[in-house]
Amino acid sequence: MINEHNLTQVYKGNIVYTPSLEELTTIENGYVVVENHRVIGTFEQLPEEYRNCEVQDFGHRLILPGFVDLHFHAPQFANRGLGLDKELLPWLEEYTFPEESKFKDLSYAKEIYPQVVHALWKNGTTRSVIFASVHKDSTKYLLDLFIDSGLGAFVGKVNMDRNCPDFILEDSEESLSETLEIIEEYSNKSPLVQPILTPRFVPTCTTPLMEKLGSFARDHKVFIQSHISENQGEVDWVKELYPESLDYASIYHQYGLFGHQPTIMAHCVFNTDTEIELMAKSGVYAAHCPNANYNLASGIMPVRSFLNKGVAVGLGTDVGAGHQVSIPKVMTAAVQASKMKWLESKKTLEPLKLSEVFFMGTKGGGKFFGKVGSFEPEYAFDALIIDDRELGTLDLTLTERLERYLYIGDDRHIEKRFVAGTEVLEPKKTP
Amino acid sequence: MINEHNLTQVYKGNIVYTPSLEELTTIENGYVVVENHRVIGTFEQLPEEYRNCEVQDFGHRLILPGFVDLHFHAPQFANRGLGLDKELLPWLEEYTFPEESKFKDLSYAKEIYPQVVHALWKNGTTRSVIFASVHKDSTKYLLDLFIDSGLGAFVGKVNMDRNCPDFILEDSEESLSETLEIIEEYSNKSPLVQPILTPRFVPTCTTPLMEKLGSFARDHKVFIQSHISENQGEVDWVKELYPESLDYASIYHQYGLFGHQPTIMAHCVFNTDTEIELMAKSGVYAAHCPNANYNLASGIMPVRSFLNKGVAVGLGTDVGAGHQVSIPKVMTAAVQASKMKWLESKKTLEPLKLSEVFFMGTKGGGKFFGKVGSFEPEYAFDALIIDDRELGTLDLTLTERLERYLYIGDDRHIEKRFVAGTEVLEPKKTP
Repeated sequence: MINEHNLTQVYKGNIVYTPSLEELTTIENGYVVVENHRVIGTFEQLPEEYRNCEVQDFGHRLILPGFVDLHFHAPQFANRGLGLDKELLPWLEEYTFPEESKFKDLSYAKEIYPQVVHALWKNGTTRSVIFASVHKDSTKYLLDLFIDSGLGAFVGKVNMDRNCPDFILEDSEESLSETLEIIEEYSNKSPLVQPILTPRFVPTCTTPLMEKLGSFARDHKVFIQSHISENQGEVDWVKELYPESLDYASIYHQYGLFGHQPTIMAHCVFNTDTEIELMAKSGVYAAHCPNANYNLASGIMPVRSFLNKGVAVGLGTDVGAGHQVSIPKVMTAAVQASKMKWLESKKTLEPLKLSEVFFMGTKGGGKFFGKVGSFEPEYAFDALIIDDRELGTLDLTLTERLERYLYIGDDRHIEKRFVAGTEVLEPKKTP
Repeated sequence: MINEHNLTQVYKGNIVYTPSLEELTTIENGYVVVENHRVIGTFEQLPEEYRNCEVQDFGHRLILPGFVDLHFHAPQFANRGLGLDKELLPWLEEYTFPEESKFKDLSYAKEIYPQVVHALWKNGTTRSVIFASVHKDSTKYLLDLFIDSGLGAFVGKVNMDRNCPDFILEDSEESLSETLEIIEEYSNKSPLVQPILTPRFVPTCTTPLMEKLGSFARDHKVFIQSHISENQGEVDWVKELYPESLDYASIYHQYGLFGHQPTIMAHCVFNTDTEIELMAKSGVYAAHCPNANYNLASGIMPVRSFLNKGVAVGLGTDVGAGHQVSIPKVMTAAVQASKMKWLESKKTLEPLKLSEVFFMGTKGGGKFFGKVGSFEPEYAFDALIIDDRELGTLDLTLTERLERYLYIGDDRHIEKRFVAGTEVLEPKKTP
């Protein structure tokens, strides 16, 4: 007789996860049972039926869901921490476009992209949604790197066919044909890594390009990512480009980029209530990137308004406008930013709580990947094993240990990373 | 004939420092010449007269002034990253006072304080201004630890004789006599470590206590530190306590705590123009603690207003309301916060530039210690040797390398620390 639990793993430790925005589930010395890469459940006592399974005991350590980054520009990695005295539009012109143009050369991608995947691994980002550059070959190389790594990712070749320097401007037809080629080649290549449609943002995409990408999304069931309302100058520019449109969001909606497939919109600093309602109704995800919004002097996203209207909010580092690869650093920046928004709103928009930012950086963003970011039944077992002894006493509640780790811990405290039930080992930093 | 340069050290590397707020001096492959622990000068070519001196060559590395932290609560160290869902006054009651009360027991100080000194060392904070607790013996122990470490510090026994829980409330006479005992014992004990008068803040100090401490400052030439206008609730409370006073600052001034000796005021979020002018006139330093001000939902100090009126501004981590010991993290948080202030002020208060925050965290705060925080002639040679290869290409300007290090580097990139010309080795984390 075959052992019915031969594909079962049992992990023991101090378990923390967030089933909902308000709820932090903590189990001291608890068990996570995983079967076929997915969680069966979490338990205070190991159920009788698993008593014969081998238990991997992580002792005093924390077991957390892996971190999810909804917004990351891989070809800006080498620019982290540079040029942060600029606002969005001059920063794009002077720092970002010149750096991204280097990825025309595959050999430059081979120098930088392994460092990107390594940095995500190191920081416990088990799933990420990535902007590559406009370059097909470098984008394919990055997709392959993620597949080899064992980390989960959506990776998009950027589309932009207007309003950018010649050295990075695309021909519309070629932009579309290359995008289609990547979709066809990668959509069924890996269960963990997928291509994603990536029109950069309204100002750099012609109307026909957006419309065609909208049709790709429907016909090929491909997800979408872009930017919205990061900076006041950008919002004003979009209004000049589409004077007849109601607002920025309705342009994406009109051209088929909202509502047919899951879409991520990064930033959302200046959206109106009407736009927020449209995003909620269309199932659009908002990627909150507080560090990037500080760095480019954009402003603070009113996250509470989005949550109140039912928009799914996840977190993004937005490397390179955001300088840190770490999602915990974004979680704590999101709490800090929400406190300033609370003051600015005359205490009407409540600050974000620990459970809320932890949710956004795990299950909230994880939903874009399916059942990811929690230890509830049927969730992919994405997990981090955290040894926080160096941070001080362990004689605290698990909620306090989580808070302390998010505020003052770093990659040095992450001992192991699991994605979909498999431990992910350190990837190479060079090809 | 005695070699006239037998006490001369020459260090070679990539030198960066700020003689003024606006000016970043960078010298590629330059030399710092140090004699009798003080800088003689920085040079692109080694002057003829030092050609026979041995050169310690740090190659591609950066040589920066050591970091200066003007505001740090040593007995809150173990609370870093905890309780950050509170505002100032409840946070003091629920988290801070109970933790500080543990330092009544010297054995608890012996557990925690070596970790404090180690953390400052690790993060490159070569000089710091420290609040201890109200407890005399633990405070003396901390002074001794700093003396043994080789780091520079002012350490103050806190005074508070009203409006705090019984378990931490002092008798006024005893508070004063213990303060005097520490002054007498430590004022001439070490060239690098000094006691400092530390009335916690107006709400917890009676008028006679403040007056008497003011007279200690004059009679014994002891410096002073306290808090001002961190939180709106605190400002309102002070107004209730002293309804006849013009403002918060004038209370400190009236009781002799401004203008006779150098004084640091931490936070300064809500000061009026009149207060800022009083501080400028009285030579009071403002310690800007942006992370703490975010964490306790206090607000953002209008640093530009203080600089415009000529107040000396330094930076503070404000551990434990601030979670990170790192001054570079405070520098970048200060830039970020100033950008939000810029938006809030309708673009009237210009954001802080890189040179300005670097100045504040080195020479700006360093001035409190004398000629500290720069590599200009006669400055104490406090320096950090930074190996930033791990952060990416070195094919950047030194200004860019500095910016990148401040944003994305950490303690792992600091190879050596010097204080007053002597290399400071790693202190023990246990007694």
